[in-house]
Amino acid sequence: MADWQEIPGGVTAPKGFKASGITAGLKPSGTPDLALIVSEVDAIAAGVFTTSQVKAACVDYCRQRLQAKPTARAILCNAGQANAATGAQGWADAVESAQLVAQSLGISPELILVASTGVIGQRIKMDQLRAGVPKLVETLSEDGSDAAAKAIVTTDLVTKSIALELTLDHRPVRIGGICKGSGMIHPNMATMLGFVTCDAAISPHLWQQMVSRAADKSFNQITVDGDTSTNDSLIALANGESRTPAITDLGDDAEKLEAALTEVCIHLAKAIARDGEGATCLIEVRVSGAPDDESARKIARTVAGSSLVKSAIFGRDPNWGRIAAAAGRAGVPFDPENLRVQLGDFLMMEQGQPLPFDRPAASHYMKQASAGEYLKADTLLISISIGNGSGSGSAWGCDLSYDYVKINAEYTT
Amino acid sequence: MADWQEIPGGVTAPKGFKASGITAGLKPSGTPDLALIVSEVDAIAAGVFTTSQVKAACVDYCRQRLQAKPTARAILCNAGQANAATGAQGWADAVESAQLVAQSLGISPELILVASTGVIGQRIKMDQLRAGVPKLVETLSEDGSDAAAKAIVTTDLVTKSIALELTLDHRPVRIGGICKGSGMIHPNMATMLGFVTCDAAISPHLWQQMVSRAADKSFNQITVDGDTSTNDSLIALANGESRTPAITDLGDDAEKLEAALTEVCIHLAKAIARDGEGATCLIEVRVSGAPDDESARKIARTVAGSSLVKSAIFGRDPNWGRIAAAAGRAGVPFDPENLRVQLGDFLMMEQGQPLPFDRPAASHYMKQASAGEYLKADTLLISISIGNGSGSGSAWGCDLSYDYVKINAEYTT
Repeated sequence: MADWQEIPGGVTAPKGFKASGITAGLKPSGTPDLALIVSEVDAIAAGVFTTSQVKAACVDYCRQRLQAKPTARAILCNAGQANAATGAQGWADAVESAQLVAQSLGISPELILVASTGVIGQRIKMDQLRAGVPKLVETLSEDGSDAAAKAIVTTDLVTKSIALELTLDHRPVRIGGICKGSGMIHPNMATMLGFVTCDAAISPHLWQQMVSRAADKSFNQITVDGDTSTNDSLIALANGESRTPAITDLGDDAEKLEAALTEVCIHLAKAIARDGEGATCLIEVRVSGAPDDESARKIARTVAGSSLVKSAIFGRDPNWGRIAAAAGRAGVPFDPENLRVQLGDFLMMEQGQPLPFDRPAASHYMKQASAGEYLKADTLLISISIGNGSGSGSAWGCDLSYDYVKINAEYTT
Repeated sequence: MADWQEIPGGVTAPKGFKASGITAGLKPSGTPDLALIVSEVDAIAAGVFTTSQVKAACVDYCRQRLQAKPTARAILCNAGQANAATGAQGWADAVESAQLVAQSLGISPELILVASTGVIGQRIKMDQLRAGVPKLVETLSEDGSDAAAKAIVTTDLVTKSIALELTLDHRPVRIGGICKGSGMIHPNMATMLGFVTCDAAISPHLWQQMVSRAADKSFNQITVDGDTSTNDSLIALANGESRTPAITDLGDDAEKLEAALTEVCIHLAKAIARDGEGATCLIEVRVSGAPDDESARKIARTVAGSSLVKSAIFGRDPNWGRIAAAAGRAGVPFDPENLRVQLGDFLMMEQGQPLPFDRPAASHYMKQASAGEYLKADTLLISISIGNGSGSGSAWGCDLSYDYVKINAEYTT
């Protein structure tokens, strides 16, 4: 049984956090486009950012800030303009954005982190941002998580939010998160942003380690269209307001906290995969028997990202051949004679050989996976074993559907 | 000016080669499905094979044969069944296939190479193959290249063939090739097979080096859906029948031969990319200024394979942002301030900054790229520079079109 329970509240569920989201006029659509998350006290801040060589100004800014001092009070996020490939002016805009928030909050600009999502090559609409920030600060609220979650989306069909409560030293500790990301083929909007808040007290080094490991098991294990964005960011704040003893080294408390943090990140990451354009189901790929966890995760990512696998699943075709082929090309050496492939409860391949299986029943299982409502689709599970190693890992993706391409084709014509 | 001229004849253009192709009844469609290429004398044989961990029996067989002795007389290829993931029986079928050809030709089975393409997990229909081989040998002809090219296809819309003639030591030397491959999302049929013949005399070691390098610049630089197959193979025979002096080390003759061989492979590889399902144009990505050729090729592959870039090109949207983002995530370090992106003659980004450009004219250029007939579409050229290095390389792909997905959606429903 899990050591935590799900609670409402998103990023404002942990103590000492407020959030807000408004329509500042940055997006042409007129929907909410400016969000703020604030901790009442200085929080330990950790971040994981895009590995792309072409980074947005906000990514450079946050990395620099966190490198100087892993402490923050607030995260400002704008939607509409990515502020990537915008040069020196883009950098100046990021700096000014942080200053505006700092002024309104009456704190040092060094405590403000910034994130952007939207069209690459477009600067933030600074007039609208300047006008919006005071209103954003005014409307900060202890139940503002939903408003913030709504204001960070671009092509997302739903907002994505989660909060968990666990117990450390007999006291409640909470972790909350919101995120955005969905697009496959959409105009430069496919950025993934995740913001996590936590009221545990923890050392900066340990927090960064936990956040990096959680990202590796969650956001780095989802694939929609395989395109890493210029703006991808995960920022996590821990403010200590739970008044639990500070976690300064590995041990039971650290383990419990990391497990819950990882669960928050996996929940958010799966929500992004499920929201992939036109997706009719969420695909979960579990790999075991690998020499190490990273090898297992690599195979899981490759299978979840394979166009051939994704299209077979859209067609509800129990096509083990495509799964085996994708596993084989992941770049992880294994003996094909140890390959085992299972779809739901249906064992399709063992010791590298296809097995007879009840094809209509397997198709039925696959159809069930989309029996739920759109975006509440059940998960279609692919289990793969490649040997006797102890390494395991999961990845998540979505199917490649007619609707997905239709949406895109209609956009482009 | 090129040192060669294009000639007709495909794999039977070089001296001392015959080929044939018949309908043996392996494919349910009733189209040609069994091909044979034969050299009248022992030929030096080189091969490049799939890097997948899950390999077809024919791949294991050829690798083993070429490792034992790089000499061959014939290549048998069946279409319809991939003979991958077919275990010990699949291996026995590959061995028997070679024996059948050897018997009919009256030579040693060790001189026969085999290749398969079709559905993964299905054994070759051996009864049909046994009946077909004598007929295949009977119909061998000096102008049999087209028949062979027709019998190796699966989902291909066109056959792919080329032959070049160059001069070495005042005598004509010929290189010919045929290949198959097109599928994106099609039932396990996306295998790439390439067969090259040459009448030059060359040492085995040098021939293998040339073939490997040519594959790296051609077949390894095309991307349709990113899925490496279990059966991908390039096999090249050089039989010496041009009676030119044997090439045994690097020098002018070796260089000329390798250049022509590379040209043959690039022609065939581009034909595969152009035949990508639903493609409306061929995309060529040229990268320069990289630290080395492999880095340049890696960036070119990533851009050519990006779903976001491919869909933008289908929409004829001059979207430099997606090109820059794809270049940035290729895993090659570079300073974004040196990034230069050009689409046709339109310079869109320089020193990492977007430039103003004539958008209607750029769109017009992109539309021109599809003005040709289907499959004769012009090439849409993307040029990228990432710095001052001397490394350069190209990759080819096709756009991601509505038709492509429509075909697939209709197949799956």
